[in-house]
Amino acid sequence: MKSDLPALMKTRNLDALLIFGDALHNPPMVYFTGVHHVTEALLVIKRGEEPLLFSHNMERDEAAATGFATRSVTDYRFRDILKESNDDFALASARMLQRMLTDAGVTKGRAAVYGKRDAGQAFGLLGTITELLPELEIVGEIHDSVLTEARATKDAAEVERIRAVQKQTTEIVGQVADFLSRQRANDGVLVDKDGKPITVAKVKSKINLWIAERGLDNPEGTIFAPGAEGGVPHSMGSPDAVLRVGEPIVFDIFPKEAGGGYWSDFTRTWCLGYATDAAQALYDDVRFVYDTLISEIHADERCAVFQARTCELFKQRGHPTVNEDPTTNVGYVHSLAHGLGLDVHESPGFYGDPKTAKDFLRRGHVITVEPGLYYPERGMGMRIEDAVHIGPEGKPEILATYPLDLVIPLKS
Amino acid sequence: MKSDLPALMKTRNLDALLIFGDALHNPPMVYFTGVHHVTEALLVIKRGEEPLLFSHNMERDEAAATGFATRSVTDYRFRDILKESNDDFALASARMLQRMLTDAGVTKGRAAVYGKRDAGQAFGLLGTITELLPELEIVGEIHDSVLTEARATKDAAEVERIRAVQKQTTEIVGQVADFLSRQRANDGVLVDKDGKPITVAKVKSKINLWIAERGLDNPEGTIFAPGAEGGVPHSMGSPDAVLRVGEPIVFDIFPKEAGGGYWSDFTRTWCLGYATDAAQALYDDVRFVYDTLISEIHADERCAVFQARTCELFKQRGHPTVNEDPTTNVGYVHSLAHGLGLDVHESPGFYGDPKTAKDFLRRGHVITVEPGLYYPERGMGMRIEDAVHIGPEGKPEILATYPLDLVIPLKS
Repeated sequence: MKSDLPALMKTRNLDALLIFGDALHNPPMVYFTGVHHVTEALLVIKRGEEPLLFSHNMERDEAAATGFATRSVTDYRFRDILKESNDDFALASARMLQRMLTDAGVTKGRAAVYGKRDAGQAFGLLGTITELLPELEIVGEIHDSVLTEARATKDAAEVERIRAVQKQTTEIVGQVADFLSRQRANDGVLVDKDGKPITVAKVKSKINLWIAERGLDNPEGTIFAPGAEGGVPHSMGSPDAVLRVGEPIVFDIFPKEAGGGYWSDFTRTWCLGYATDAAQALYDDVRFVYDTLISEIHADERCAVFQARTCELFKQRGHPTVNEDPTTNVGYVHSLAHGLGLDVHESPGFYGDPKTAKDFLRRGHVITVEPGLYYPERGMGMRIEDAVHIGPEGKPEILATYPLDLVIPLKS
Repeated sequence: MKSDLPALMKTRNLDALLIFGDALHNPPMVYFTGVHHVTEALLVIKRGEEPLLFSHNMERDEAAATGFATRSVTDYRFRDILKESNDDFALASARMLQRMLTDAGVTKGRAAVYGKRDAGQAFGLLGTITELLPELEIVGEIHDSVLTEARATKDAAEVERIRAVQKQTTEIVGQVADFLSRQRANDGVLVDKDGKPITVAKVKSKINLWIAERGLDNPEGTIFAPGAEGGVPHSMGSPDAVLRVGEPIVFDIFPKEAGGGYWSDFTRTWCLGYATDAAQALYDDVRFVYDTLISEIHADERCAVFQARTCELFKQRGHPTVNEDPTTNVGYVHSLAHGLGLDVHESPGFYGDPKTAKDFLRRGHVITVEPGLYYPERGMGMRIEDAVHIGPEGKPEILATYPLDLVIPLKS
């Protein structure tokens, strides 16, 4: 968590963190600032010191709301620097950054860089800064950065925020179940009271309203994928697809706090009216693995061990898995879990060799648990996903419970 | 526009464009692919050739929907590469990218890089790729990239998409005006029928529902800033603030197509019930400059010329401007305009020296026109903003018209 950062920075010999970009939908920045309408900013965090936020004058009220000391980017008079640089925008940008870093006292040592911005701009700008400030080493951590490591372990306030958004998500799921159960079937297709088929687009438009009513964002949309479409894990569901009685629908929903805060992540697979024997059998296998892993998962073990265990259980039940063939498109084709926070997929990761992989499950981690089986040629996929917090006992606590039922009965 | 790219690439001696990241909320990728649930992808565009999209197996349906040739990232068996790399994730990531680029035939020459991703990861990964593929020069364009240049000029389909979202935005603005006009004042404060003050948060919750009803996204929220808060251009408006009769409210709203497509951008300043003389005088100055610039703006002139003209007109009316003092917080404190497209702020830019600045206004550009005046100490700001398309005649065509009135009369 945040309080680990000075020690983590020391271990990796980092003198400063430089975080670029907006305080919206930009996890490294939002982690420190919270969500604010501050754009194209720079947050400088020297080891063991309070952060300093550079932002535009026009956004000074929003910048002040972060509670950090602030400096105005506008005061650097970019237009003058541009003139000094003979209208070379790239050079002027680097020179302005050089002056900001100099004023912040970051001109030598090692500084790690974070924040969402254009990859080419980052490469160009940071390369030029390395020339302008030759005593400063810019560190670009590709993986396992001090920030991703700190962020993986949530403090109590973070857990409560993720729990709150996950709870709201389960409420929306309940509204969807209720909406579907109140429709009727006509020739095996779900229709509204006027006899018009309920499409995936119709369901999603309801979902979007219910998300907006709660003041949440849904930037990546919702997976509502019936039949064969649910057989490919990330198929979103075709807007015009209709819902057939008995056909499994993979419903994976992941709204986040407005402006780019903490995410939720939740999946159920539903059959409307009834389940076929084939769907029920697939469900039973996924449910068995879900129940088993929820009971077995514990802290201080390599995450990859639980992925291996999931593969083992699915294999015992006759399913192909990524353990035998990493490129399989049928059976169990993905990871059991991922960290959940300001990114919808963050540390820890559940891949790699169960004997050597680096990521261990720790108390304070918030992760998904999401076993699934995929058979597009049989016209179905099946996934159950909950978000859990690894509590003080080292065991998973489901953040927001919701019935695991496969079948949504139709009331009429 | 897109069709300019091969020539632009040739001029700058670029052999390939490498676009990283998601096909969601990532303008460089969405520009080619459209919005799809494809994440952590790589699009390779060799000069004059059809793009090739690398993406995860789990998202193969969504990748196929882009219409591009696709390759599965999964087939590169990252886990094996990780093992070969002694669990060095950073090295393994670079080696996998090396193999993908080799298969795409991009191992030498000059390749420009784009796409939103973590700045540090980009810097680290691209630095390592430069070592692994020494004949390939990675080009990080900080400004005026071939992509921003191509994207600035919109083709007919793009103009229609921006027009459509801008039109929906004006419809929402109309709903807000109608909602406000139906409330009544109590001791100078707008209240609902139960006598409860209407807060900024209440208005924004309505706006969010109306945005969701239209299937649009609103990732950065809405500026609805009454009184002194409107005197700082990007203050969002405090949630608990009440609305006072006669007090100017800066209302700047900018939803975008769902999943990260084209943006709208629109501002009106409103006084509920009536305007004070001071507010009316400020409005008249902004309106005069708006009308003048809308009539004067034309293609094939430096954009900075129109910014200088705006400053000149405001100065004549006795207002401080950024021309005399780039750091001023009162009077005219920002740019007249910015390009509007897949980014809410994109090329062309209206800053710099009117005699030497690089950006010219061109037919096909879509820009905002948004003069404003800011006097936080006087308790008010004033801005009018429309989005315009520079049409075949070289003149601005307002994409979606909406009344410019300052006063929203209260019906009761």
